[in-house]
Amino acid sequence: MSAISLADVYRARQRIEGRVCRTPLVESPALSHMAGVPVHLKLETVQPTGSFKLRGATSALTELAERGVTRVVTASTGNHGRAVAHAARALGIEAAVCMSSLVPKNKVDAVAALGARVVIAGKSQDDAQVEAMRLVREEGFAFVPPFDDPHVIAGQATIGLEILEALPSTATVIVPLSGGGLFSGVAFAAKQINPDVAMIGVTMARGAAMHASLVAEKPVLVDEVETLADSLGGGIGLDNQLTFAMTRALIDRVVLLDEASIARGIVHAYREERLVVEGAAAVGMSAVLDRVLDAPRGPIVIVVSGCNIDIELHRRLIGAL
Amino acid sequence: MSAISLADVYRARQRIEGRVCRTPLVESPALSHMAGVPVHLKLETVQPTGSFKLRGATSALTELAERGVTRVVTASTGNHGRAVAHAARALGIEAAVCMSSLVPKNKVDAVAALGARVVIAGKSQDDAQVEAMRLVREEGFAFVPPFDDPHVIAGQATIGLEILEALPSTATVIVPLSGGGLFSGVAFAAKQINPDVAMIGVTMARGAAMHASLVAEKPVLVDEVETLADSLGGGIGLDNQLTFAMTRALIDRVVLLDEASIARGIVHAYREERLVVEGAAAVGMSAVLDRVLDAPRGPIVIVVSGCNIDIELHRRLIGAL
Repeated sequence: MSAISLADVYRARQRIEGRVCRTPLVESPALSHMAGVPVHLKLETVQPTGSFKLRGATSALTELAERGVTRVVTASTGNHGRAVAHAARALGIEAAVCMSSLVPKNKVDAVAALGARVVIAGKSQDDAQVEAMRLVREEGFAFVPPFDDPHVIAGQATIGLEILEALPSTATVIVPLSGGGLFSGVAFAAKQINPDVAMIGVTMARGAAMHASLVAEKPVLVDEVETLADSLGGGIGLDNQLTFAMTRALIDRVVLLDEASIARGIVHAYREERLVVEGAAAVGMSAVLDRVLDAPRGPIVIVVSGCNIDIELHRRLIGAL
Repeated sequence: MSAISLADVYRARQRIEGRVCRTPLVESPALSHMAGVPVHLKLETVQPTGSFKLRGATSALTELAERGVTRVVTASTGNHGRAVAHAARALGIEAAVCMSSLVPKNKVDAVAALGARVVIAGKSQDDAQVEAMRLVREEGFAFVPPFDDPHVIAGQATIGLEILEALPSTATVIVPLSGGGLFSGVAFAAKQINPDVAMIGVTMARGAAMHASLVAEKPVLVDEVETLADSLGGGIGLDNQLTFAMTRALIDRVVLLDEASIARGIVHAYREERLVVEGAAAVGMSAVLDRVLDAPRGPIVIVVSGCNIDIELHRRLIGAL
């Protein structure tokens, strides 16, 4: 549990300052009305690469650059790869990004447009990971893990700092749950500042590796399935070092959502919050909309993690409902 | 030209701190590519009431509250009324909002939901203004002008401060032009910090009172017409005290856009920036998209002023193009 300290989070914040947006925390009248307590949205959608991933990637890459590293590689469902590409270009570092063939085209294009080398490998996050490791062994790249890394976790944890600084009365924080980098970072910072903050992780009902691992009490593999919350896909790694233990220790509740619920969150964000969000970013709103939390303590803060949804999919969703 | 000083802008910032969002400034890769120079978006869309108007209203109301005022009234095309209602509730002040029958229903509802008394009067901003003045005379309310007021202007001017602080190399700022409160505030702060900053005002081709007044070299009336940029409608007041003179002194260029161009801006914001914006907020992006600026100096900052568009209209626009 001492993988990182609060001082590490402040160090990460100092590193990323000016490179990453200190994002707005905005109350949602519609969700507050529904929940009966104030609900605020932490808008990572406005980050330069459209997701919170820029925090962790920038934290990790600045630390690597300080140590003289000039070539980095990562495996990614898209947002982390895009973030690494963006941070690498800003720092003048070469970047290669390995991803599976399931990753949506808009995310692949975004990484390529940022000047990174895109490497498509296999049909799962794990296959992409294997290819990244080959580049590390054979071509001398430094690996930037998507979540299971202390500098990445400390970067994501700056969200928790910002939340508690802006709203010290925060009682519940709802975070999308995937590999656990975002969850454990935010939960760590929030509970260090106030141990009474309830931390809720939300993920999709099918193919959620962290949930399956929490149930099994050890990291396990799951089959990857297509989901509106594609950013939440991928394994947590059978040799997970940090995020499994941190998530297990810090999580108060896991909420599982079906695809219709995720879609309702996307549509709500558009109609009521005037936000374009990806499926992974909608899950916190979906959880409030579907009233799956019994008498949640307020104020509630929902981390709205990113906006990188395929725009034709988004148009279909807001047209159909 | 000395209606406000830079010190007044810093005083306004101190007053509104914590009540209003310090908004993100995010580069747009798509617009940068198109313009050939970096283009950044100043996202007032994330303000709690969905537009920059909260800055001016909060600046004015905190100043009134300091002087013991407990009842305020305003006339508004919607966003200012909503902002006054929000700020009044936060300060524990009673608010009445007068607006014309042309104001979209979603904006009327938003004001009412914030606990303000809504007064519908006539078919133009000028009619609404007359009713507001009656409440001042007969019921003892204090009037909060939508733009022609030093505290309102100083509040909007905090946007200029934030832009130049975040990006001191800013060479061109593009601002939606209506009554001139936003324009003159941002232009004043920007040019105080760097007199070489070019200030471009963008408005609709038909029914733009400030443009007609600049051409006539004095405040004139125009017929109000329906436009996608409804927030830019309304007169500037024949007895305009501040914003006409300030805008005339500070503006380097006026750009006029037709409705199709405004629609293109709204669609671009959705597809490429993942932003839901109202017509008035799209005009800066439209100006870049339609390449109406000859060799603009960069970096360019576009003020994206708000997100309060009727959502069915937005759906039609993004579906139709």
